Amino acid sequence: MIFTDLEISDIRFPTSRALDGSDAMNPDPDYSAAYVVLRTDAGDGHEGHGFAFTIGRGNDIQAAAIASLRPYLVGRPVAAVLADLGGFWRELVHDSQLRWLGPEKGVMHMAIAAVVNALWDLRAKREDLPLWQLLSRMSPEDLVDLVDFRYLDDALTRDEALRILRAAQPGRAAREEHLLREGFPAYTTSPGWLGYDDDKLRRLCKEAVADGFGQIKLKVGADLADDVRRMTIARQTCGPDFRIAVDANQRWDVPTAITWMRELAPFDPYWIEEPTSPDDVVGHATIARELAPMRVATGEHVANRVLFKQLLQLGAVSYVQIDATRVAGVNENIAILLLAAKFGVPVCPHAGGVGLCELVQHLSMFDYVAVAADMSDRVIEYVDHLHEHFVDPVVIRQGRYVAPTAPGFSATIRPRTRTEYAYPDGPVWAAPDPGAAEAAPRPAQRRPGTEVAP
Amino acid sequence: MIFTDLEISDIRFPTSRALDGSDAMNPDPDYSAAYVVLRTDAGDGHEGHGFAFTIGRGNDIQAAAIASLRPYLVGRPVAAVLADLGGFWRELVHDSQLRWLGPEKGVMHMAIAAVVNALWDLRAKREDLPLWQLLSRMSPEDLVDLVDFRYLDDALTRDEALRILRAAQPGRAAREEHLLREGFPAYTTSPGWLGYDDDKLRRLCKEAVADGFGQIKLKVGADLADDVRRMTIARQTCGPDFRIAVDANQRWDVPTAITWMRELAPFDPYWIEEPTSPDDVVGHATIARELAPMRVATGEHVANRVLFKQLLQLGAVSYVQIDATRVAGVNENIAILLLAAKFGVPVCPHAGGVGLCELVQHLSMFDYVAVAADMSDRVIEYVDHLHEHFVDPVVIRQGRYVAPTAPGFSATIRPRTRTEYAYPDGPVWAAPDPGAAEAAPRPAQRRPGTEVAP
Repeated sequence: MIFTDLEISDIRFPTSRALDGSDAMNPDPDYSAAYVVLRTDAGDGHEGHGFAFTIGRGNDIQAAAIASLRPYLVGRPVAAVLADLGGFWRELVHDSQLRWLGPEKGVMHMAIAAVVNALWDLRAKREDLPLWQLLSRMSPEDLVDLVDFRYLDDALTRDEALRILRAAQPGRAAREEHLLREGFPAYTTSPGWLGYDDDKLRRLCKEAVADGFGQIKLKVGADLADDVRRMTIARQTCGPDFRIAVDANQRWDVPTAITWMRELAPFDPYWIEEPTSPDDVVGHATIARELAPMRVATGEHVANRVLFKQLLQLGAVSYVQIDATRVAGVNENIAILLLAAKFGVPVCPHAGGVGLCELVQHLSMFDYVAVAADMSDRVIEYVDHLHEHFVDPVVIRQGRYVAPTAPGFSATIRPRTRTEYAYPDGPVWAAPDPGAAEAAPRPAQRRPGTEVAP
Repeated sequence: MIFTDLEISDIRFPTSRALDGSDAMNPDPDYSAAYVVLRTDAGDGHEGHGFAFTIGRGNDIQAAAIASLRPYLVGRPVAAVLADLGGFWRELVHDSQLRWLGPEKGVMHMAIAAVVNALWDLRAKREDLPLWQLLSRMSPEDLVDLVDFRYLDDALTRDEALRILRAAQPGRAAREEHLLREGFPAYTTSPGWLGYDDDKLRRLCKEAVADGFGQIKLKVGADLADDVRRMTIARQTCGPDFRIAVDANQRWDVPTAITWMRELAPFDPYWIEEPTSPDDVVGHATIARELAPMRVATGEHVANRVLFKQLLQLGAVSYVQIDATRVAGVNENIAILLLAAKFGVPVCPHAGGVGLCELVQHLSMFDYVAVAADMSDRVIEYVDHLHEHFVDPVVIRQGRYVAPTAPGFSATIRPRTRTEYAYPDGPVWAAPDPGAAEAAPRPAQRRPGTEVAP
């Protein structure tokens, strides 16, 4: 049985029309997926689904990069590839010619993420388990074989990783049970988008508390007076003990991050997320030192395990925010979970966008069962957007992710959505939106927009 | 007068057939250019030429990324864009949707490099000056307007940059004269490719000395015994005082870099280049500290100015190796030249590949005339490959780059080459190579190769 095809599609949602997802750096995202379906001739009805998440323009470039990986899979035996996903990961990431396009970052790395995640989806479906459970039941030896320790040795060796995983073996079954019973804590970013007015902010804060969330997150960084006003509203609405994190989406220089956050400190922000460039590990360390005991979080734009390693080595972050599709998929995220466990830093994943909640819940649940073996001070981002397009959407109950039980990686977008939102020819994009045509013309037809000027 | 078109082509040279360019990470590169020609309706006969350099597979992805920038230029007024290349750079780099694909790294950032460099080529042609001279005659105020100081403020402010440039104003004319008379020192990597046998290494070392070079560079990192043997040959052939740099092309972990280079230290390597991941600024700092006084160099794969900033902040490098097409073109390289000047670290550019020598000479010459104002301990890489395909190829005389005098950025590949090496339909690729068909089949037809296993 071999892989017969990679079907690739460019799916975009016109989220900019309602300013969902608007923040200080991303005023008008159109949440998009460069989507891949792996097909085999196994005749078991299983496909592997995966995607790279983008925010609109450039989703076609991302799709082209995924297509470039076709020769790696088509014609290869399914069982052998799925049995050695560590080896296959290395083949993709270490291809010397494609590596030049990163290395290990950006478009090419995210393309590998899409394919690797689709392979995990397929493997979990074939083994009839949700991915988190499949990973949680693997041996420590098999898990470390998934990880490429290149460039990690000065912080985490294979032997240390093995020790971490072995230490977490006792209690795995009990933690699985606990997860299935209680789920995993979530926080919600839905109230906090910059494009929402104060009334909407107040209403959504109330709803978050009523819905059982213990934490919300507000976007900040465009205007200090606005941030102070919005933090005042949120703090008054949610109460003094409620966790309110803030997120600057890389808007600031290092000195600006420090002075700005000193102004917001009286509102007791739970963490400051992405205060500056995700590449600036030294800058994050400076910010963390200057603002201590305020906590710094980052990760959704951190390109690979090497940058995460340094953030941890420098003590620059109090929370590691993995993303399911920016680093090269499940394998690299296992490396990052192990690094975080080594340094004793909780992992609180980035989610939102389209499908990121669906994917990343599996990684946090695996982390709880088999790596960190701890749920305290851990929380997965939740944004209430676009879940209706998924075959196995996340379920949130009383502010917690309910552990998924369907086999796979929860990555599958409904076939009808894939047709309707296909870009540029699907009906959603081909037919002008009558209500919003003036405000948000079709991206391909307008002068590309830039962020709000700094 | 407006921009009327961006003509994009995928040009590849089958360099893997002779193992030119082979190193520990890149055993079989096919040097390639994702090439762009900017056309206007000015009727002055000028076009802007630029490219991103890749090593084969994926050059089409790079070309697609360049094509995504078409809407930014087509229809825009030529004079206004060329008069504000700082503003235009920000427009491209800060586009919120395209930015998600990096941010500021990888395929999308290199695409911006190609377009920005093509704009500089056009501007220099219209002003009838070689680029280095155009830049060297700009005012400090106009030069800092080209630079985006976002994320740099904790290391270099606009005012500090202005002071550096103003301090270099006296003597600009004398240094221009000196350059035109004497050229700029080069070193050659031609002897050092891993794929060459010992006799070829010895012969090329002799030639390098005879040709007047003061420095060569050897690839290392695949096998320690081989490296010791090859360093022995090179040291014996070139003599005890000749500079021999070594380059590991990111092959090592941090601990391996340290132990391996201690074995090569007796051969007095002039620098160790790319000892580990280009993202690992903390790792480079550790290596530099452990191996001191051995000098560490890196840069050709450093994704952007933020990572260069940190390498300098941590004292991790003794030489900054800018690349003309990896960061976002001339503007970002000016930022890096200014950072290097601030920290007093010499810039010794990466070159080779296809066209990198042609481009980067302009940046070093500008650095000498108007930024660092110093030529001591500075040297530009030179590799004797593929120059015959350029309209204005580099000229090396007695181990020095002769200052180019033709207007533009020396980026123009001959029209006939662009046709013959077009991938996959040009005659070089469409017709099988009779001599080498077995050894190096057409990349698109073979199973993609990976690097030598670590």
